[in-house]
Amino acid sequence: MEDATKTPGLNQMCPVLWLFMYKIIQDPVNGPVKIEGLFSEIVDSRYFQRLRYIKQLGLCNLVFPGANHTRFEHSVGAMFMAHELSESLGVKDEIPAIAALLHDIGHMPFSHGLENEFYGLYGKVHEDMTKDVILGKGPYGDSTIPDILEKYGYNPGEIAEVATGSSKKYPLYSTMVSGPIDVDEIDYLRRDALFCGVTMGQIDYKRLFNTLIVEGTDLVGVEKSIPTIESIIITRILMFNTVYFHKTCRIAQKMLGYAYLENNEKNSDDMKMTDYQFINKLEHGNSSELVRSIMNRNLFKVAYRGAYTEESTSNINSLLQDFQEHEYIVDIIPPLYFAGSSRIKNYAKVHYRGKMENINNVSSMAMALSGEMENKQLIVSASEKSYDKIRKLLNGI
Amino acid sequence: MEDATKTPGLNQMCPVLWLFMYKIIQDPVNGPVKIEGLFSEIVDSRYFQRLRYIKQLGLCNLVFPGANHTRFEHSVGAMFMAHELSESLGVKDEIPAIAALLHDIGHMPFSHGLENEFYGLYGKVHEDMTKDVILGKGPYGDSTIPDILEKYGYNPGEIAEVATGSSKKYPLYSTMVSGPIDVDEIDYLRRDALFCGVTMGQIDYKRLFNTLIVEGTDLVGVEKSIPTIESIIITRILMFNTVYFHKTCRIAQKMLGYAYLENNEKNSDDMKMTDYQFINKLEHGNSSELVRSIMNRNLFKVAYRGAYTEESTSNINSLLQDFQEHEYIVDIIPPLYFAGSSRIKNYAKVHYRGKMENINNVSSMAMALSGEMENKQLIVSASEKSYDKIRKLLNGI
Amino acid sequence: MEDATKTPGLNQMCPVLWLFMYKIIQDPVNGPVKIEGLFSEIVDSRYFQRLRYIKQLGLCNLVFPGANHTRFEHSVGAMFMAHELSESLGVKDEIPAIAALLHDIGHMPFSHGLENEFYGLYGKVHEDMTKDVILGKGPYGDSTIPDILEKYGYNPGEIAEVATGSSKKYPLYSTMVSGPIDVDEIDYLRRDALFCGVTMGQIDYKRLFNTLIVEGTDLVGVEKSIPTIESIIITRILMFNTVYFHKTCRIAQKMLGYAYLENNEKNSDDMKMTDYQFINKLEHGNSSELVRSIMNRNLFKVAYRGAYTEESTSNINSLLQDFQEHEYIVDIIPPLYFAGSSRIKNYAKVHYRGKMENINNVSSMAMALSGEMENKQLIVSASEKSYDKIRKLLNGI
Amino acid sequence: MEDATKTPGLNQMCPVLWLFMYKIIQDPVNGPVKIEGLFSEIVDSRYFQRLRYIKQLGLCNLVFPGANHTRFEHSVGAMFMAHELSESLGVKDEIPAIAALLHDIGHMPFSHGLENEFYGLYGKVHEDMTKDVILGKGPYGDSTIPDILEKYGYNPGEIAEVATGSSKKYPLYSTMVSGPIDVDEIDYLRRDALFCGVTMGQIDYKRLFNTLIVEGTDLVGVEKSIPTIESIIITRILMFNTVYFHKTCRIAQKMLGYAYLENNEKNSDDMKMTDYQFINKLEHGNSSELVRSIMNRNLFKVAYRGAYTEESTSNINSLLQDFQEHEYIVDIIPPLYFAGSSRIKNYAKVHYRGKMENINNVSSMAMALSGEMENKQLIVSASEKSYDKIRKLLNGI
Repeated sequence: MEDATKTPGLNQMCPVLWLFMYKIIQDPVNGPVKIEGLFSEIVDSRYFQRLRYIKQLGLCNLVFPGANHTRFEHSVGAMFMAHELSESLGVKDEIPAIAALLHDIGHMPFSHGLENEFYGLYGKVHEDMTKDVILGKGPYGDSTIPDILEKYGYNPGEIAEVATGSSKKYPLYSTMVSGPIDVDEIDYLRRDALFCGVTMGQIDYKRLFNTLIVEGTDLVGVEKSIPTIESIIITRILMFNTVYFHKTCRIAQKMLGYAYLENNEKNSDDMKMTDYQFINKLEHGNSSELVRSIMNRNLFKVAYRGAYTEESTSNINSLLQDFQEHEYIVDIIPPLYFAGSSRIKNYAKVHYRGKMENINNVSSMAMALSGEMENKQLIVSASEKSYDKIRKLLNGI
Repeated sequence: MEDATKTPGLNQMCPVLWLFMYKIIQDPVNGPVKIEGLFSEIVDSRYFQRLRYIKQLGLCNLVFPGANHTRFEHSVGAMFMAHELSESLGVKDEIPAIAALLHDIGHMPFSHGLENEFYGLYGKVHEDMTKDVILGKGPYGDSTIPDILEKYGYNPGEIAEVATGSSKKYPLYSTMVSGPIDVDEIDYLRRDALFCGVTMGQIDYKRLFNTLIVEGTDLVGVEKSIPTIESIIITRILMFNTVYFHKTCRIAQKMLGYAYLENNEKNSDDMKMTDYQFINKLEHGNSSELVRSIMNRNLFKVAYRGAYTEESTSNINSLLQDFQEHEYIVDIIPPLYFAGSSRIKNYAKVHYRGKMENINNVSSMAMALSGEMENKQLIVSASEKSYDKIRKLLNGI
Repeated sequence: MEDATKTPGLNQMCPVLWLFMYKIIQDPVNGPVKIEGLFSEIVDSRYFQRLRYIKQLGLCNLVFPGANHTRFEHSVGAMFMAHELSESLGVKDEIPAIAALLHDIGHMPFSHGLENEFYGLYGKVHEDMTKDVILGKGPYGDSTIPDILEKYGYNPGEIAEVATGSSKKYPLYSTMVSGPIDVDEIDYLRRDALFCGVTMGQIDYKRLFNTLIVEGTDLVGVEKSIPTIESIIITRILMFNTVYFHKTCRIAQKMLGYAYLENNEKNSDDMKMTDYQFINKLEHGNSSELVRSIMNRNLFKVAYRGAYTEESTSNINSLLQDFQEHEYIVDIIPPLYFAGSSRIKNYAKVHYRGKMENINNVSSMAMALSGEMENKQLIVSASEKSYDKIRKLLNGI
Repeated sequence: MEDATKTPGLNQMCPVLWLFMYKIIQDPVNGPVKIEGLFSEIVDSRYFQRLRYIKQLGLCNLVFPGANHTRFEHSVGAMFMAHELSESLGVKDEIPAIAALLHDIGHMPFSHGLENEFYGLYGKVHEDMTKDVILGKGPYGDSTIPDILEKYGYNPGEIAEVATGSSKKYPLYSTMVSGPIDVDEIDYLRRDALFCGVTMGQIDYKRLFNTLIVEGTDLVGVEKSIPTIESIIITRILMFNTVYFHKTCRIAQKMLGYAYLENNEKNSDDMKMTDYQFINKLEHGNSSELVRSIMNRNLFKVAYRGAYTEESTSNINSLLQDFQEHEYIVDIIPPLYFAGSSRIKNYAKVHYRGKMENINNVSSMAMALSGEMENKQLIVSASEKSYDKIRKLLNGI
């Protein structure tokens, strides 16, 4: 495995001793994952352990009850994928794997579920927090990650940039962690599909890695890679349609956002909480009733569903203006800020008959699907109390 | 299971005895499959046993070495799917399952691999042969299937029509076996993907069956079924691209066709042979060398590859007119007779917001993919002897 | 599926309408599971929803990070298994499935992890609590389950007895839910193996169900069932060895027990809490430090390991008498109260050559493994503070 | 992957070119397998291609209809496993992988199914033939394997010894290919289970390889490896019980042996045939009727079944002495020559608490199962013609 090369002396000279020094984590998605040295110290650190209590898919377990997996497993999985990809590409440097392990360490409670609210209140997204943990800054001043990195000779600032996909010094490593084909996504698509119990998300990552090469600082597929890259694009679309944009997941998360915004004692330290600490705070605050409804899965119900247009939206918003703000949700799926074709990442590069091409230009399937995510739906859901009124009101549209 | 209702007396009154009367076939795709009574007698009959020696994917095992599965397992699998679908729809009649078990019983050696050649010589396709076996006609005059069917009160003619998807008396059963969503395909897509070792072909058939209803004589999906139907359409396209139209599979099969056409002792009874009997005949005939090349995987190599146009094809054909007919293959992928959007079956019906719709009209993904299969490629491959000359000749195009 | 027979009128007469009335839960272990009517109302009830927040394996996720699955999914899975088994046996009654759905509804926080402590303090095990929820008694006086059951014509008392495996009125149903071969276990073995990421737990339950019959009030295997029953026995042993008795899981759970016993504000209502409410209570109480250690996976470390004998245990206990009670853990694996051969349930009944036999008498493998679980290990683990001293002290033994 | 290190120049300097030079074989069991250079030339050679037509499990497909997999795929799989194990152990030498690829190249038609008969007639077992192919000797004088090996600098004689597990020069490599824990078996157990459709054969080989070390020339497990080694022992037993010693597989194979022994034109070159050539020879010889019965699955039926003792066997043999030799089969399962505990290979070595131990001494499960395979059954089966008489005759025993 990857680590066999790290401590060649001990590994070769005294294999028994060496074998006592690593751990194996059994991962339902990737099988046994070896952890040692730097990786082991990061995993054991307090803020990495905190990820055990941040669900990967926020409140989606209310719809897919198996979806209780956390950022902890995903981060370990992304590291494993980074090791596999590095090995396949002949990259000996550990930076991609370190960055992959750390890439989500700053996630707020409920992952992306409350990210809009936190951004609105405190002006931070999870990448900012990830940098804070890696650098030991801001609310994460007591993070031990920078010390661990330095002890092993790594520069925390450089790692933070690779981890957040923005490194100019290491553009290849950056794109391995966050690019059109990246280890983050190859782990989470497969993981989310497994835990949600949906029959999709099958990506033959070994075949993919076997057919990727490095050109300059780019990851490029050879011709044989095209069907595998197509299957990733399809999997992405199916997972967005089926899971990530599931209307009920979104309703639950918006309700949680309402509950938080109503809370009297907001504080930027809330972003450091775990899921359960956050819920507990709300259960003991002034929006406890709403939170309990969420946890008991008494959710707003869909009162209206139609095609999205700017006009219909403003029409509906004005019809609903007499209702309490937190009595209903007007949601657009996919969300307005979602840039379909670019989020679907149909710009991966491939070698095709001697030329470097965008996958979109050589795969008619990729091209065909590019437009697919642009159709938007408008969904209005309402609390139990207001459901009948709102339904009636919007009935005529 | 399905059979539990068939012999209620014995099943309920003397379960031990009853349990001695059925067999369980372990199927890598569908798990344990119970067989008894009529089904057991059909399976034990000589012409059904013959299917053990007809590979499901002809010579594709030369490309995908795991693809040694046969029409035998697929036929049992289609029967199993028919039982599951019948149960889900509340259909008590055994006709769909009987027809599914028999639907491929007339397949010629190497399944679809030589079907064009046989049709050219003897004017028969496999459906004709299937009818012959079920009716005990033509070359299959000694078939025991009609007797078995009649013994259990079924009309062989009616079963033959359902089995070949052409029954006017039982249109629903016909469409269950051969329609836009059918048990034949739901078995073979999953089976072929598994044995070819390709990471696709994942169809959640249980979810699909749970979301299909009968309207008149149609199988119709409810709204919840849309993502599953989309995933079938995608699986179909991926399997065509990756396996069924794989250029090397097609080369091997064309070569086998050449070997057969060269053979001096052709005979319509050849359609009754098994794969190995057929190969053996050719190995002992005047095209033995070509056959041995195929079996040893010394195949024609690709000498030219380009986009298909009528012009380029006639251009190439005239350039190659001085070569022996069997020295090269000009192939179009997908083949000219392949009608993409209809073979992709994007016309399944679904209930959507109160109306019955074509899946194409409600799924932008299905619509997007409809055009995808129409791009055609032209491939010229050549025997070892002529490869260099042909390659040079076509180089300038 | 199972439910198709429940509302035959609507199902047959107006399938579209009917299809709007059920839900499908996607389960990573069992695939799509249909829920309607009574089952749907139970699932929606508050105390069933509470199971979303009770982890199936307590703190084992600290060792197997994928093990975040909950009693919610397991209960739905056990219901599904009960429907499948009922169908296979020709049992039309819904009681086994209802009882399976409810069999764990009273589980305390962290499932079995704290059961000893709760029993010591309040004299209750989870079966008592399950009865309380089903009957609406004791701390669960506000449970809506009895009303739901009565609305559909079921007697809560009778269901409670089947759910806890103690019904004299319905001994067959009781044994289906809790017996030598039961739906509870067939779900949890497969589920725990999947989520722990261990390559075992493969039980071909379809084959098993196909080979079970009812004799009197017993579930009995026919001869064909023997290999499958053997594989269940093996799976049980492997799962006990690998997961359920994993020394680190047990350490974490004992530490949590210590934290609870130290807490000043214990209250029998704690048994009604969810995992996160329980942790939150402790985090805000006087044992907060210990709880935070557990959550950050700073666990006691193994200071001694040897074969168990009564003598060695009392020896060790006296050596450790000067240490604070909560500074160390003396653990025996498997625990003393664990009756290996009976817990391994090698007493399932099978028909073998005309006679009814105990599996132990006809399977030499079952017999061979009966003794396997009796070897006991003694493990002493210690807090960081006392580790060195205790290690030195026990070194000489 | 493995190959990345083989041609470092090209791999690093011109990855695009390099990627054109290897093939990927999609394997249902192991996923994508890269093949290049020496490995590619061996796979393309005539005698390796011949393995496509030697079924891995002889006639077992008559019982498990999915079991059509061949020695071709298994040999590629064993090579892949050897590469994975080498990498894990830090072995850079390609010899283990080359030997694994070639270890079965001399298999006679129907694998082990006729090995007894061939040995009786010609005094050769498949290892002898494997050596002949690798050395280009005996009936395999035209083998190109020795030339290919020498071209790449390998000594055919040395490879032949590693391939047949008898090398004194390379004892570690020898034991990797054929030892108590070997790549041959780790491939075939998983492969046979998958294709037979039996829910077992799950071996976490990655975890196993991660916990093996080299001591001197031995492969030794560390303590963590024990549960995985136990699971291999169990899988072996289950696969022997369920598949390899399945009474009907054995009947079919014995019948084929009879047909061959009856044949007038036996010839040691028959050992070079493929399955289909062999069947074809028999179908055109004087035992054609018996062969057709086998192919149509008209097999001898079990007329008697009891515990084996020497006495009962001689008793039965004398009772049957008036029947034609080929009218019945007296079979002992497991066969007399099968040395249970050693075939179950419970002598793998492990490090346990500082000492090197036999797995049997540290795993009570391994120990418990050691005796399990010694119970022998006696089975008499008879042709249709003699079944009634033989059954009656043996009834009184």
